[in-house]
Amino acid sequence: MLDGYGHVSVRNPSNANRYLLARAKAPALVTAADIVEYDLDSAPVSGSGTGYIERFIHGEIYRRRADVNAIVHCHCPDVIPFAATSVAMRPLYHMAFFVAQGVPVFEIRQTAGMTDMLIRTPALGKALAATLDNKTAALMRGHGAVIAAASLHLVVAEAYYLNLNARLQLQAMQLAGDKVVYLDAEEAKQATQDYERSWENWKSRLPRP
Amino acid sequence: MLDGYGHVSVRNPSNANRYLLARAKAPALVTAADIVEYDLDSAPVSGSGTGYIERFIHGEIYRRRADVNAIVHCHCPDVIPFAATSVAMRPLYHMAFFVAQGVPVFEIRQTAGMTDMLIRTPALGKALAATLDNKTAALMRGHGAVIAAASLHLVVAEAYYLNLNARLQLQAMQLAGDKVVYLDAEEAKQATQDYERSWENWKSRLPRP
Amino acid sequence: MLDGYGHVSVRNPSNANRYLLARAKAPALVTAADIVEYDLDSAPVSGSGTGYIERFIHGEIYRRRADVNAIVHCHCPDVIPFAATSVAMRPLYHMAFFVAQGVPVFEIRQTAGMTDMLIRTPALGKALAATLDNKTAALMRGHGAVIAAASLHLVVAEAYYLNLNARLQLQAMQLAGDKVVYLDAEEAKQATQDYERSWENWKSRLPRP
Amino acid sequence: MLDGYGHVSVRNPSNANRYLLARAKAPALVTAADIVEYDLDSAPVSGSGTGYIERFIHGEIYRRRADVNAIVHCHCPDVIPFAATSVAMRPLYHMAFFVAQGVPVFEIRQTAGMTDMLIRTPALGKALAATLDNKTAALMRGHGAVIAAASLHLVVAEAYYLNLNARLQLQAMQLAGDKVVYLDAEEAKQATQDYERSWENWKSRLPRP
Repeated sequence: MLDGYGHVSVRNPSNANRYLLARAKAPALVTAADIVEYDLDSAPVSGSGTGYIERFIHGEIYRRRADVNAIVHCHCPDVIPFAATSVAMRPLYHMAFFVAQGVPVFEIRQTAGMTDMLIRTPALGKALAATLDNKTAALMRGHGAVIAAASLHLVVAEAYYLNLNARLQLQAMQLAGDKVVYLDAEEAKQATQDYERSWENWKSRLPRP
Repeated sequence: MLDGYGHVSVRNPSNANRYLLARAKAPALVTAADIVEYDLDSAPVSGSGTGYIERFIHGEIYRRRADVNAIVHCHCPDVIPFAATSVAMRPLYHMAFFVAQGVPVFEIRQTAGMTDMLIRTPALGKALAATLDNKTAALMRGHGAVIAAASLHLVVAEAYYLNLNARLQLQAMQLAGDKVVYLDAEEAKQATQDYERSWENWKSRLPRP
Repeated sequence: MLDGYGHVSVRNPSNANRYLLARAKAPALVTAADIVEYDLDSAPVSGSGTGYIERFIHGEIYRRRADVNAIVHCHCPDVIPFAATSVAMRPLYHMAFFVAQGVPVFEIRQTAGMTDMLIRTPALGKALAATLDNKTAALMRGHGAVIAAASLHLVVAEAYYLNLNARLQLQAMQLAGDKVVYLDAEEAKQATQDYERSWENWKSRLPRP
Repeated sequence: MLDGYGHVSVRNPSNANRYLLARAKAPALVTAADIVEYDLDSAPVSGSGTGYIERFIHGEIYRRRADVNAIVHCHCPDVIPFAATSVAMRPLYHMAFFVAQGVPVFEIRQTAGMTDMLIRTPALGKALAATLDNKTAALMRGHGAVIAAASLHLVVAEAYYLNLNARLQLQAMQLAGDKVVYLDAEEAKQATQDYERSWENWKSRLPRP
């Protein structure tokens, strides 16, 4: 889901104006020593090393969304095609319930014209956060996605199922075009869950140190 | 096939009114200590721990189907698109012979209107069992599938080949639309098998403890 | 490519009227002790244990084809959709040069009407061998494929690239329909190769005992 | 990306008229002892063993392109369908920025008529280099691709993302046909990067000796 890029952050549980994010490093290689604490302007307040250029994704979403305590940014492959089209993501099953909120697509050209596609500034972070608004996930055209949730366990599972729903939605559309039955908004709302069983399963599959 | 969710049960071989199912846990993490015995009302009679919310899938199918001794519930990914459309699953090859019985789709809205998609009650379990009727597999719209068979070895292989047939059927339809030649009902009947060679192969690939 | 089923045989290098094939067992579990020697009627002449029901695939192709010294039978997944349609396999690249000979589809109904799809008799083995004729590979409708070659190294690689060509041909057809440029017959003939580099690579990836 | 075939070379950092390439061997099996030094005519100047037949791919691109210090030749599967059609590859996201330069397709028939598809001669190497021209990547019809870059780290990542972009572009076209929004040429230019984080990540995943 993350390959060499992408990042995962959590809001500091003891200071809502701070968040924790690794220094610039492939996610699979991150250890506790790589964690840097940032303020909501995405300036480092403890820890060291070069930060991710796109840390403003995190800072600006935490600033705007008091309900968010964890964020994933990824280049999850199966969402990239959706990010490049106007085909809306729809929730194919209960595991992707949050897709029913709608998954807006952030078009960086509207904010900044021609760019390298990266969220390099507070202004771009704010624009992305505005596109995300009160949703769980937003796609980023020509780039990837951002997922924001109340907890680390939630956000990891939602990133995973966002990507899987994208693959399965394409398959369903190939089978039946616009005659696919998606979750109703009410079904999706009732299907809200915490994915704790996924977390235990994924943790058990990490390589032993 | 199962990821962090899904469950596998067997009818108690020495008491047809009881079945064995793990407590709520990711299938890959289940050990002997996690097994709980249930009666056909899906009330625990031995063992401890929180049960799967959806254990009624198992209890109500065992109640209705004296021929069934093992059940898998899964969110097998490649069947999810079929579950969301009215495209019927058809048997593409002899390994999926049981698909020729038809794979009905359970639409939970018909029984219970708007829900969280889960089989939370005996009534929902009974409705799903009625949709499954005397078949091997049923899809669950917006959710997954249930597979029921005479033995554990059979049901695991049938879950595996149900999912694989779904992927290959989509490919065949992309190649040739409605000109795909599926197994004839008589071919499928004669192709009934026990998959014992799969069982040995899969067992050999489990991680060594 | 083989999962729990499928089998690989070689003609006995010191007796052209004999071939070597494992007893009925998942290919990944086969050891030297499982090898049985058969005559061309597919009767065992040394070794023990239950043979594969479909050993007639091997015996009848060895009988008909003096040039063949190794055979694979598989349920290679990506060829199953082609086996169920009248879309011809075509060689997309030099690694699948042998596909240019044509990949006939064996329709068991023409020989035997309704069956369990298996090559259970010498007569069915002869009919499959006749469909294969002088080609490298034949698909078996509703079942899988057979691949026959001058050596074990060749036949394993040809089974692998038959399956990969099927997947890539479907992708090419999705991109460009009937405007795909396949290998010319002359290109395919010149591209004939022995795949020795694949063999070394695959051998190096076997699990250490 | 490479399977048993494909090769990776680097220009000798201390002699621009020489390049380093393994002797003919599956890439995963190459060790330091397998490295051969070639001049730009692709004649060996140190090291021993049989060279890759297609080493002229490397020699002729290094001769023509002073800016290139590393080259990958691969049969990367997902680009094979594009190589067989006139559908142009387009950059779907910033990770494949170099695709915006255009990915020309080398049609060996135009240079040499019917062949075994291999770049067996200096003349074919020159023709391929001329098709590649000043681009990063060229597809080879019925064969694979070549990728050329300023460094080894770059070329490996560009080969990887060329293949991934091919898969995702097909998905995007299936979703939205010609209404896919690709990177603008200016976006692609600004998105130029060095992929160093990928390199660290991939290195960490190599099997331990």
